[in-house]
Amino acid sequence: MPTAWTSRYASRALAVKSSRIRELLKITQLPEVISFAGGLPANDVFPIERVKEACRKVLESNSTAALQYGETEGYAPLREMIARHISRYGIQAHIENVLITCGSQQALDLIGKLFINPGDRILVEAPTYLGALQAFSVYGADYISVPCDHDGLRTDLLEAPLRAAPKFMYVLPNFQNPGGFTLSEDRRHTLVALADKYGIPIIEDDPYGQLRYEGDHLPSLVVLDRQNLRRDQDFTLGNVIYLSTFSKTLAPGLRLGWIVAPPDVISRLVLLKQGADLHTATFTQVIAYEVSRDNFLDQHVRRLRVVYRERRDAMLAALAEFFPPEVTWTHPHGGLFLWVTLPESMDANLLFEEALKQNVAFVPGDSFFAPDGDNIQRNRYMRLNFSNAPPDRIREGIRRLSLAIKTQLQQLRVPQPVAGP
Amino acid sequence: MPTAWTSRYASRALAVKSSRIRELLKITQLPEVISFAGGLPANDVFPIERVKEACRKVLESNSTAALQYGETEGYAPLREMIARHISRYGIQAHIENVLITCGSQQALDLIGKLFINPGDRILVEAPTYLGALQAFSVYGADYISVPCDHDGLRTDLLEAPLRAAPKFMYVLPNFQNPGGFTLSEDRRHTLVALADKYGIPIIEDDPYGQLRYEGDHLPSLVVLDRQNLRRDQDFTLGNVIYLSTFSKTLAPGLRLGWIVAPPDVISRLVLLKQGADLHTATFTQVIAYEVSRDNFLDQHVRRLRVVYRERRDAMLAALAEFFPPEVTWTHPHGGLFLWVTLPESMDANLLFEEALKQNVAFVPGDSFFAPDGDNIQRNRYMRLNFSNAPPDRIREGIRRLSLAIKTQLQQLRVPQPVAGP
Repeated sequence: MPTAWTSRYASRALAVKSSRIRELLKITQLPEVISFAGGLPANDVFPIERVKEACRKVLESNSTAALQYGETEGYAPLREMIARHISRYGIQAHIENVLITCGSQQALDLIGKLFINPGDRILVEAPTYLGALQAFSVYGADYISVPCDHDGLRTDLLEAPLRAAPKFMYVLPNFQNPGGFTLSEDRRHTLVALADKYGIPIIEDDPYGQLRYEGDHLPSLVVLDRQNLRRDQDFTLGNVIYLSTFSKTLAPGLRLGWIVAPPDVISRLVLLKQGADLHTATFTQVIAYEVSRDNFLDQHVRRLRVVYRERRDAMLAALAEFFPPEVTWTHPHGGLFLWVTLPESMDANLLFEEALKQNVAFVPGDSFFAPDGDNIQRNRYMRLNFSNAPPDRIREGIRRLSLAIKTQLQQLRVPQPVAGP
Repeated sequence: MPTAWTSRYASRALAVKSSRIRELLKITQLPEVISFAGGLPANDVFPIERVKEACRKVLESNSTAALQYGETEGYAPLREMIARHISRYGIQAHIENVLITCGSQQALDLIGKLFINPGDRILVEAPTYLGALQAFSVYGADYISVPCDHDGLRTDLLEAPLRAAPKFMYVLPNFQNPGGFTLSEDRRHTLVALADKYGIPIIEDDPYGQLRYEGDHLPSLVVLDRQNLRRDQDFTLGNVIYLSTFSKTLAPGLRLGWIVAPPDVISRLVLLKQGADLHTATFTQVIAYEVSRDNFLDQHVRRLRVVYRERRDAMLAALAEFFPPEVTWTHPHGGLFLWVTLPESMDANLLFEEALKQNVAFVPGDSFFAPDGDNIQRNRYMRLNFSNAPPDRIREGIRRLSLAIKTQLQQLRVPQPVAGP
C-alpha cells in the first residue's frame, strides 16, 4: 500500500535490490538444514573467556573510554596496534594511516561514497564479493568485470579494461570470497605495475589473509606497490588502499574493520564517517584492543587455522568421495569458501531448490557477478562455506548435496517432453 | 601533496566540510579547560556495574548471539523492547516497525540515502542539529530554513515554505539541539495538520525526549499524526518517521539508535543498511538489551533526570549571576543544551578565541544553520552544554565566560582606529 513516503525514494535507493543470499540465509537457519550458505566463522571458537575477562577489566579501569563518545578515527591504542600488526606483514603504516570502521562493509561503503560518481566504472573480479557490489551500486557505479582462474584475477586480460579508465580496481588477493582463489605472486607484480602504468589505483580487500592453511604468505599489493614506486617507507603516497577486519579472526558481532590509506584519504573518509555514524562503537573497540593485546590474537589465529584447515580438508575429501566427475571445485589455500563449477547444462538455482529438499544449502553463484555483459555462464557455480560446521556434518552435507546433483543430472539426461502442436 | 587518489574524489565528497565543532572539541579536551562545547553525557552516571554484570551474563549464556553475525534489522529482543517502550509514550509499534542503527547519526545517514536526490530541498529548523546537515548534505540536499523561537519551530511561517514542496521536514520537538527549545503542544497539532494538508512528511528526531526536568511530557508528532489521520493503531501508514537513541539514556559509546517507520520504509532502509555495514554490532545490542531489561533503564533515566536537572539549574543560576544584561538565553525544560543570544554587535567566533584565553569553551552557533539565505545574524549565538560538568565547575565556567564576554563588550565600546590615508 503506498504511504506518504513511497513516492519519495531517491533514485539510488530504488536501484538497490534485495540480496538473494540474505533471503536464503533465513530459510537455511532451520536446525535440520546443513548450511554451507553463510560466511560465518565457527561459533565454537570464539574466545569467550578472554572477551569476558576483557569486559571486566575495561569496565573496572577504562569505562569512560568504553562508554563515552570517541574520536571518529577510532580508539587510538587499537589504531596503533593495527599499524604495528600489519607492519609485520610488511605494510609500513602509522596511526594516521588507519581508520576504524563498522566492519569491512562500512569501509566499502565509505570508499564508494568518497570515490564513485554516478556512471563511474569500477573494475572488479568475476566473480567478486557481493557486498562490494551492494556498497558501490548505491553510488551509481557501473562495472568492468575481469575473469578469475585458479591463480586469481586474469592480469593477462587487464590492459584493455584499464584503457577504459575505471575509477579504481577492486581486488581480493587472498582466498577470495566467493572463489577461494589466491592471486599468484607473479600476477601481483603484474597488477601493481599495470596500476602504475595506467594510473588506475587499487582497493585491496583482505579479510582472510591471516587464515592461511597451506603455502607461504604472499606479499600484499600495498607492499609491492610501494616497492614498485621505490617508496617502501612512504605512507603518504601509493596506488593501493588496504582493507581488513576483525570479523574472521576475532568475532563478526563486534563489527570492526579498518582502512589503511594515505593521510589525505583518511581525513576525507573521516569527514564522511562523521556524517555516517559519528564513530564506531567505542565499547567494542576498547574490548577488541584488550582481547587482542599481548599477542593473544596471534595465538588465537593459530588455533583458528588448525580448526578451519581440518574443515576445509573434510570438505575437499567429501567432495572427492561423493561428487560426480562432471563437477569441479577450487582448492583454497585459506579463507572460508570454495567454489564449485557445475556441468554447463546445470542451473545452480534449480539445484538449490533440489538441495533444500535434501536439507542442505549453499549460495548459487550468480549473485557474485557484476551486471556488466560478459560471456560467463553465471548460473553454473555455487559457493560453499566450510568454516561453520564440524567435519562430520560437512561430510554429511556434501553427501546430501551430491544426491541433489545426481537427481538434477538425471533429469537433464531424460529428454524433456516437447510441447504439442 | 597529490596522490593517485586526490583527483578521484566524488563530487559529493568534495562538498563535505570539516565540522568546526569537531576541531573545537580537540582543543577543548585539555584538562584546564572547562568545556561546555561537547554534547557528552556525564561520565560519572554511566551504569558501569550493571553493564559489567550484563557482559558476564551474556558471555555465559548467550555468547553466540553477541559475537556472531546478526540480522540487519537488529537484535529481535531489543527491537521488541523498543516497541514496548515507545508504546508507553503512545507510539504504537510492532517489531517490524523498528530498525536498529549505529546511533541516531546512522539513522540520519540512511534517511538521507533513501530519500534525497541531489537538489532536493529539506525543510529544517533554524537553528538545527549540525549532524543532520552533515548527513543530508552528502546526498546533495538543499535547505529551506524556518526560524525557531522559545516555543520551537515557528509553524506560523510554514505555509509558504511548504508550498515550495520540500522532500520532508526535519524537526526536533523536544529540548532541541542546539536551542533547547520545545515545540509547544498547539504547534505540534498545527505541524501535523500542515504536513497532511501539503503532503510533506516529517522526520521527528527525539534523542532527548525522556530527559525532561520540568513540565509534562508532550505528545510526539508520530502520535498526533496518527490521531489526525484517524489511524491510531495503523503502523503501515503515516506522515512521520520517528528517531531516537540510547546515547543519552544509556551510553553513547554503544552507538545504538533506532528508526520507527512503516514496514515498507523499514525494508528499504534495511537494504541500504546491509550495504552500509551489514548490521549494527550484535555485541552492543545484546548488552544494551540485558542492561535495559526489567525496567532498569527507566530507573536509570529517573536518576539522570535528577543529576542533569541540578546541572541545568546550576547553569541557569550562574548565567543570572554573572552574565551582563545585554545577553539572553533559553530555559530548556530538558535535554543537554541551552542557547545564548549575544548582543547584535558581538561575534561568537571572536568570543570563542577570548574564552579560550580564560580556559572555557563553547560552540559558536553559526554551525547550526543551514546554508540557505535568511535574515538571521548567525554569529551572535552560542550553544552551552550542561550535562558533562558538576555544578561547581559549571558555575566557575560561566564566571570565566562572563569575563570573556565583558572583555569583548569593552572592545566593542572602544572606537576602532581608522586606517591612515
